[in-house]
Parts: sequence; structure tokens; C-alpha cells
Amino acid sequence: MLTRIDHVGIACKDLDAGIEFYRSAYGFEVAHIEVNEEQGVREAMLRVNGTDDGQATYLQLLEPIREDSPVAKFLARHGEGVHHVAFGTPDVAAETEAIGARGVRVLDPVPRAGSMGSRIAFLHPKDCGGVLTEIVQAAEAGDGHG
Amino acid sequence: MLTRIDHVGIACKDLDAGIEFYRSAYGFEVAHIEVNEEQGVREAMLRVNGTDDGQATYLQLLEPIREDSPVAKFLARHGEGVHHVAFGTPDVAAETEAIGARGVRVLDPVPRAGSMGSRIAFLHPKDCGGVLTEIVQAAEAGDGHG
Repeated sequence: MLTRIDHVGIACKDLDAGIEFYRSAYGFEVAHIEVNEEQGVREAMLRVNGTDDGQATYLQLLEPIREDSPVAKFLARHGEGVHHVAFGTPDVAAETEAIGARGVRVLDPVPRAGSMGSRIAFLHPKDCGGVLTEIVQAAEAGDGHG
Repeated sequence: MLTRIDHVGIACKDLDAGIEFYRSAYGFEVAHIEVNEEQGVREAMLRVNGTDDGQATYLQLLEPIREDSPVAKFLARHGEGVHHVAFGTPDVAAETEAIGARGVRVLDPVPRAGSMGSRIAFLHPKDCGGVLTEIVQAAEAGDGHG
């Protein structure tokens, strides 16, 4: 079961400029910043609202830290903008197995590390109406996510 | 103040196929369908979760009903995928005036009609890091939104 929009991932060339835009224009504050070496990005989570599953919805700003990262390739092709949409679930492994059984290609059959201690898996955008889609299981309560 | 992600707008060529995908793959149900003649779209709102401002977050699927609509042009250029991100506020007129005063171009200085009786204004994507951004004020309680 998918219980929330966990975040909208936005590719940007300059993370600090992106953070400053969302702070000054809208008042959103940074909840967390980290580097994800595996994905080749520096990323910031900006909390927008709480959700009725006890978690929250964020904007995730993504800046590539190397030229061969997926986000660098996205920026080269499309420029800055929305990169992916992430839905939250209590159990990413079970959820992606079920979604895969419905014919959607799961790009990470074994979930991997996401922001703030979460576990994530991506789905193939061609099977999701052109939307690169991520499934997220937040870290346990007290671990930082939510 | 922006108090939630109100919806993520997704452009699709076939609204019924989009609805069927989100129902069968994820279990999301249609909360509302309408035609917006002004914007040239048929649109469906799929409720994802409740938000801590007393409203909700939706996916909005958008199918063009004429070739000269902005969504038809988006599909011709980009194909199917995320079209815009919408943030909710209690007062769209005041909020967009404040955002405009911070240097972001407001495309609808006078808010216009959005889904489910809401009032909306779009911001220029070039001023928003490549993200076509919408500000939404939900209809009054009991009017259907939230």
C-alpha cells in the first residue's frame, strides 16, 4: 500500500541556489542534507507538510557530484526540473514485489539506500506513463525520516 | 504560506489508461473528474493522502482536449510525464502577490478556476528552477476539495 507522496525529486545544477530559492520564495527550510555516493548526488530534503500516515512530504533537491551520474545525464538532456516522484510505503520490498507482479519493471529488485536512512526502489518510467517513480520506506521512527 | 503539496500534475495522452494504471498498479482511486475548457484538458484527481493542514495531496492526470492546449504542446515536446507541481495555500491571491514581490513571475495575477472548485495561479518555470509551479487555494470546506 502506498500511503503518501513522500517527495518530489527536482534536479538542479546548483544545490545551494536551489535551497535559497525555495527558502526565499516559499519559506521552505532544509530538514536534511547528505551526499549519496552510489547515486552520485548531493541532496537536500525540504519538508513541506505532514501526512496522515504519520510521515511527511518533502521536496528533494538533487545536484550531481559527477558527470556520469543519472542526475547529471538528466540535466544534460532536459535541463533543470522535476526528476522523479516518490511514494511512501510501510514495506518497500513487499510493495515493489507486488507492483512488479502487476507488470511494472522494478529497477531495484533489492531496495537500496535513500535519503535520511530510508530504503528505496525505482520503477521504470516507461511502465509508469513517463514518470520516473520511486517507492520509499522511511527509516524507523527516531531514525530521522518523518 | 504554502502548507502542502496539493498535487503533482501528470500529462497523459489517454486519461482512462492513466487512471487504470494508477488504480491497478498502486490502488489509487479517482476522487473527481472534470473538463476544464479554459485550459483545454480533461482531468482526474486521484487522492493519495491527507495532509496536516486539513486538506489532501492528489495526483492530477491531464489529457488534452484540443491541439492548441498547453498540455497538448507539452506532450508534443516532452511526451508523457510530470507537467507541474502544485502547492496549497489558504489564500492564493495574497500568496502569489507575495511570491511575485520576491521576483518570481506570476502567470495568473488574477487567480483562475482549478480542479474541484479551487482557485489557482501558475508561476513561470524559468523563475522556479525549471519547475512549472502552481499555487492552489482549495474550495471552501464542503465544496469538495479536501
